[in-house]
Amino acid sequence: MDILIENAAIITMKNHKIIKDGAIVIEDTEIIDIGKTTEIKHKYPTGYLRINAKNKVVIPGFINTHQHAAMSLLRGYADDLPLHQWLEKWIWPLEKHMCGEDIYVGALLTAVESIMSGITTVNTMYHYTENGNEAQAFAQIGLRGVIGHVCFSWRKKEDKKTLEQLARNWHNKKDGLIRVSVDPHSPYTVDPEYMKELRELTKELNDKYGSKEAPIIWHIHVAETQDEKEKIESAFNVRFQGGIFEYLDSLGVLGRDVVAAHCVSLTSKDIQVMKEKDVKVSHNPVSNLKLASGISPLPEILKKGVTVAFGTDSPCSNNNTDMFFLIKTASLLHKGVFKNPTLLPAEQVLKMATIEGAKALSWNLHIGSLEPGKKADLAIINFRKPHLCPLYNEVSHLVYAAGPSDVDTVIINGKIIMENRRLLAIDVFKLMERVERTKENLLARLSESAS
Amino acid sequence: MDILIENAAIITMKNHKIIKDGAIVIEDTEIIDIGKTTEIKHKYPTGYLRINAKNKVVIPGFINTHQHAAMSLLRGYADDLPLHQWLEKWIWPLEKHMCGEDIYVGALLTAVESIMSGITTVNTMYHYTENGNEAQAFAQIGLRGVIGHVCFSWRKKEDKKTLEQLARNWHNKKDGLIRVSVDPHSPYTVDPEYMKELRELTKELNDKYGSKEAPIIWHIHVAETQDEKEKIESAFNVRFQGGIFEYLDSLGVLGRDVVAAHCVSLTSKDIQVMKEKDVKVSHNPVSNLKLASGISPLPEILKKGVTVAFGTDSPCSNNNTDMFFLIKTASLLHKGVFKNPTLLPAEQVLKMATIEGAKALSWNLHIGSLEPGKKADLAIINFRKPHLCPLYNEVSHLVYAAGPSDVDTVIINGKIIMENRRLLAIDVFKLMERVERTKENLLARLSESAS
Repeated sequence: MDILIENAAIITMKNHKIIKDGAIVIEDTEIIDIGKTTEIKHKYPTGYLRINAKNKVVIPGFINTHQHAAMSLLRGYADDLPLHQWLEKWIWPLEKHMCGEDIYVGALLTAVESIMSGITTVNTMYHYTENGNEAQAFAQIGLRGVIGHVCFSWRKKEDKKTLEQLARNWHNKKDGLIRVSVDPHSPYTVDPEYMKELRELTKELNDKYGSKEAPIIWHIHVAETQDEKEKIESAFNVRFQGGIFEYLDSLGVLGRDVVAAHCVSLTSKDIQVMKEKDVKVSHNPVSNLKLASGISPLPEILKKGVTVAFGTDSPCSNNNTDMFFLIKTASLLHKGVFKNPTLLPAEQVLKMATIEGAKALSWNLHIGSLEPGKKADLAIINFRKPHLCPLYNEVSHLVYAAGPSDVDTVIINGKIIMENRRLLAIDVFKLMERVERTKENLLARLSESAS
Repeated sequence: MDILIENAAIITMKNHKIIKDGAIVIEDTEIIDIGKTTEIKHKYPTGYLRINAKNKVVIPGFINTHQHAAMSLLRGYADDLPLHQWLEKWIWPLEKHMCGEDIYVGALLTAVESIMSGITTVNTMYHYTENGNEAQAFAQIGLRGVIGHVCFSWRKKEDKKTLEQLARNWHNKKDGLIRVSVDPHSPYTVDPEYMKELRELTKELNDKYGSKEAPIIWHIHVAETQDEKEKIESAFNVRFQGGIFEYLDSLGVLGRDVVAAHCVSLTSKDIQVMKEKDVKVSHNPVSNLKLASGISPLPEILKKGVTVAFGTDSPCSNNNTDMFFLIKTASLLHKGVFKNPTLLPAEQVLKMATIEGAKALSWNLHIGSLEPGKKADLAIINFRKPHLCPLYNEVSHLVYAAGPSDVDTVIINGKIIMENRRLLAIDVFKLMERVERTKENLLARLSESAS
């Protein structure tokens, strides 16, 4: 069914344009027209499902550029611990028991939660398995996503086979809703040789399954903690000058298709390299604070003109997928830490959560802003709430006052995915019961293995 | 109607006690019993309004120890500006036109928003007027509050008269729901002599209207920015050694009844003085970050054993009254800034938002935890939400994953104030319309005065 949304305030994220009393016309998967309701209305008098968005604000759906969707199963399993203890005593031992079914169920939960908070595209890095995976979950719910398979030196052969399967089965599938990525875990878990091999493999996979419009991209953790250099040097018995990006550049693996998550511990030269190679940053302030990894020198990165988008990171280091929390936190954190209240103003962080996110995923030809010719990926947000009252400025409220529950309706690829907070493709209560059962089974396997 | 809440997980905030499948019995304004549902149920078989709280979590209502409730009218009016410009060009010129009606309407909005996010007590500092004030608004909605009148050197005589009115009309009124405070604005706007006079006046007002159980307290901004010392010295032509608390101590005005908001810029000696005088800290991290005031040395303050609670600050420097956002931000911020993921763990920040808040307001005899003999001030939170799933640990989810819209039902002083997110004392939609009109009138008066 084609759709006409009317009477909305539309934040287009193109040329700072905000249309009051605006309308958007959607045919099939695309936006075909946008403008003042009074002008649009008579051009399309019949044949559209009309959504009255009075007192509502329409934005391009948020784009979450760093997630491990399956890990919602571990939300709140352990917190407030020293990093090593958290990983080695809690997270890894439980994760070891996760099977394909668990990955699929965890990703379903994250997909649902994402949509309920206005996120329409998720870039996720996890283990891909044929018998249960994140792509399957996203496609079922109707969430747009880039599905990665995370690669480690210790399983090269297996990884390469898996990447081939992932790309063949899922790249640019489901009406173009699902794309895939190659995900070297990090510079300290992927040795220099393997890093280069993965670069080569990405080219091959792109030749077979990708295109210029829909490339298979890279997704990697970089410079998350202060000790990453020592970790690389000791893991692979190498020595290098400068920062982590300088090291990666020396391997010849950087490029405009690389989404680098975290980027906390950087040299000035690193930032220059990022700019030169057009590497995309996924900034994850909530996770970085929670794990005490440090604070990214974001103002400096932005000043250099590097593309920066936002990532929630996994629901076990955040512990939700709330993009509203994230954009407010990012805006506030850098103001406070760098003692400048003009840093990261509201419009800039909203851009970073939408159009810059699309650029980060090399998907900006199709998503990230509301304009004719782009895919219809959007969130309709209800502003008739006490905490969004009175109204001086929609963008200010979106960043500093709104929350996930204000998202009313979500459309992805021209299809209504959530309507008045009701998901159309899944029974959310049944899903939550299934998640609880899945978690119980997972804990049972852990305790069996320990006994 | 007396109330029996059953089948809940109850976070009592007393001795770390969490009761699974718990029940709470409320008679008149008080909690009279609490325990396992199976044990409580047969003791009170009839005559109670029963609330089935299956899959829900009950907590003591949040206590917001620093607010300027009326200022919700300016939410989103101006952001992302240098502090001076923000205050002098935007906030103050508009505030100057606020009349009693505006203060009342703004406070109504904040009261509603507070309850909808699980806050049951608010400590608010604003201008008190007889023909429209915050006390009136809170009492109407059923929100517990400490209502202050803010004092400045330039209006001593008027302030003193107003404080007498405020105390006489409102202290310990409305079933004990409303208390009042004396609010010297700050050490740089209240001269040393006036500061001492206000101390004297507080004693007199307590003798007339207060009691040991229900004292009239102090509420003051202290050490919010780095330049406060210079501001004091230049405003009053004084010179002093050390920090702001050392200065206040030299005036003899500190005590256990002082709620000091912000406490960002402190000397070590200041922290020692705060401990010795048992001054209470209202920590406002969201506002401090947004205005780039700096980051409070909170871990050091806590280590010293000072009582610390949370404040949202006004809705024009936050820009909402979301205590969930606040406790997560506080927990994360100090972990990140001080590079220690074990700082401010979930249970600690939940304590600071409840029982420590009650201590800060000298109200802990009656509120802040769920136990027999205390007033029934509580929030029932719905955990059947995707972002609170699966469930390992209620406290972790409350701090790291929940949000205001998860609050289902709020009880204050034994009375249901919000039920399934519906406010009982007010039509929220009509209120929002009234707020918009009030804002439009305010803007009209501003533009008239400018022309």
